Amino acid sequence: MIKPVCYARGKFLTMDEASVSVNDLGVQRGYGIFDFLRVSGNIPLFIDDHLERFCHSAQEMRLIYKESLEEIKDIVFQLIKENNQPSSGVRLLLTGGESPDGFKIIEPGLVIIQQAITPPPDEMNLTGIHLLSYPFQRQLSHVKTTDYLMAIWLQPWLKEIGGDDILYHQEGFVTECPRSNFFIVTQDGTLVTPDRNMLKGITRKKVIRLSKEMGLLVEERDIHFKEIKEAREAFITSSTKRLIPVRQLDNMHFPLQEKDSVTERLWKSFRFLESSFT
Amino acid sequence: MIKPVCYARGKFLTMDEASVSVNDLGVQRGYGIFDFLRVSGNIPLFIDDHLERFCHSAQEMRLIYKESLEEIKDIVFQLIKENNQPSSGVRLLLTGGESPDGFKIIEPGLVIIQQAITPPPDEMNLTGIHLLSYPFQRQLSHVKTTDYLMAIWLQPWLKEIGGDDILYHQEGFVTECPRSNFFIVTQDGTLVTPDRNMLKGITRKKVIRLSKEMGLLVEERDIHFKEIKEAREAFITSSTKRLIPVRQLDNMHFPLQEKDSVTERLWKSFRFLESSFT
Repeated sequence: MIKPVCYARGKFLTMDEASVSVNDLGVQRGYGIFDFLRVSGNIPLFIDDHLERFCHSAQEMRLIYKESLEEIKDIVFQLIKENNQPSSGVRLLLTGGESPDGFKIIEPGLVIIQQAITPPPDEMNLTGIHLLSYPFQRQLSHVKTTDYLMAIWLQPWLKEIGGDDILYHQEGFVTECPRSNFFIVTQDGTLVTPDRNMLKGITRKKVIRLSKEMGLLVEERDIHFKEIKEAREAFITSSTKRLIPVRQLDNMHFPLQEKDSVTERLWKSFRFLESSFT
Repeated sequence: MIKPVCYARGKFLTMDEASVSVNDLGVQRGYGIFDFLRVSGNIPLFIDDHLERFCHSAQEMRLIYKESLEEIKDIVFQLIKENNQPSSGVRLLLTGGESPDGFKIIEPGLVIIQQAITPPPDEMNLTGIHLLSYPFQRQLSHVKTTDYLMAIWLQPWLKEIGGDDILYHQEGFVTECPRSNFFIVTQDGTLVTPDRNMLKGITRKKVIRLSKEMGLLVEERDIHFKEIKEAREAFITSSTKRLIPVRQLDNMHFPLQEKDSVTERLWKSFRFLESSFT
């Protein structure tokens, strides 16, 4: 079996060879940012959007890397060609790098890996998912940092109660799932999604644009639990999952309308957008 | 020059050889805990206290490691013997380990490194330090996680204003510095230090015990800014710094009483406690 290749410490290496120094701020201080994109038919989906966000995250965290965005893009294409994993994911990771005093940033470390993922199904998930809300606000939430401390820490609790994913909230307002964005469709058919205290996903951006093109009213603003209770539909979006309807949030249930729901129309339209690239 | 030795992936390695996989949850998700102790005259100071806290942090984060505390202690002593860095620091790091899906904990990775530190001076720092307060509450703050995202992110701001360190607060109550605990001495000579929403330091614990032995009144409870304004003294404690008086917090100034201040008496008594081990 050919070992998958990745990029670390300035060169192409097999995954076994790739590593990060024990003195890296990414390891010792959890200081790093990343981005993750899906590869479909050997095409890295929405790569320019992901690179733009990666660049923005790095800037916000004062991580100044040597490689240009064009170089990074080239590396991604080289990995895809080399590994030939047509349906997979690419993780762009930028760590704080080795530090003389365990605090000061000198030179960040770029790591790019291609990894297996479960590709999203070719029909929309009609079972929906069950979200559990949890009171938490991510620090520096507008940046895609490597901080998933709370998300991983909550996994046993999530499993115990039997939920599929977590929805963070603060003072009655929901923000985001650890790896997805959250949307509701109101009774009058308006699409609403939070626009602060959370990370703006690439799928979220595409879905908002598609909604507007479809003539839907879209509101990016705070969402209170009271409003979710009255909502007609709820769904989440992520690069690896596309759109998934929410069946239940805590004790709130949403009827999964199989035909002509806004979620389904958006799923189809997003699927069509994707297929125009692959 | 002999290369310092460390412990990683189950064996003794030189620092150049030691690394963490790019698939480790410590790198990809910032999921890890650690402890840090000072070595003086080749003696690891308060090692049992540090190991106890390390073990507690690991349990809280559901990181189940193979090594017994006795084995870890043996590794620390072996490193100290091998490296012969009489005045240094030992970092015990436990990362989430390699994960098949980038989320699930399978087997944590233990890394133990010995590193150079600036040893604390042999007289108490009489210049004192200047703290700047910042509104922030660390997640899972009772655990010594590797999460220093905010602390590192704030460094340029700290430097710009000219402060020496940050003091976190929430709703008017102070909690901790990123790597130190905070104490005040009230006008009537009572020692007060926060006891929640922060990490309980080993030096903090020793200082509280010494204070009680010296007949001081000690209160572990919330401290509001209003109370700090009225305080006679303020200081911070940490394993690498012992006690350092606070000269200024924001616009509050504390006269540095060079003779017979509570801070100085505690510094001396802590120094004496340390010397009983070395």
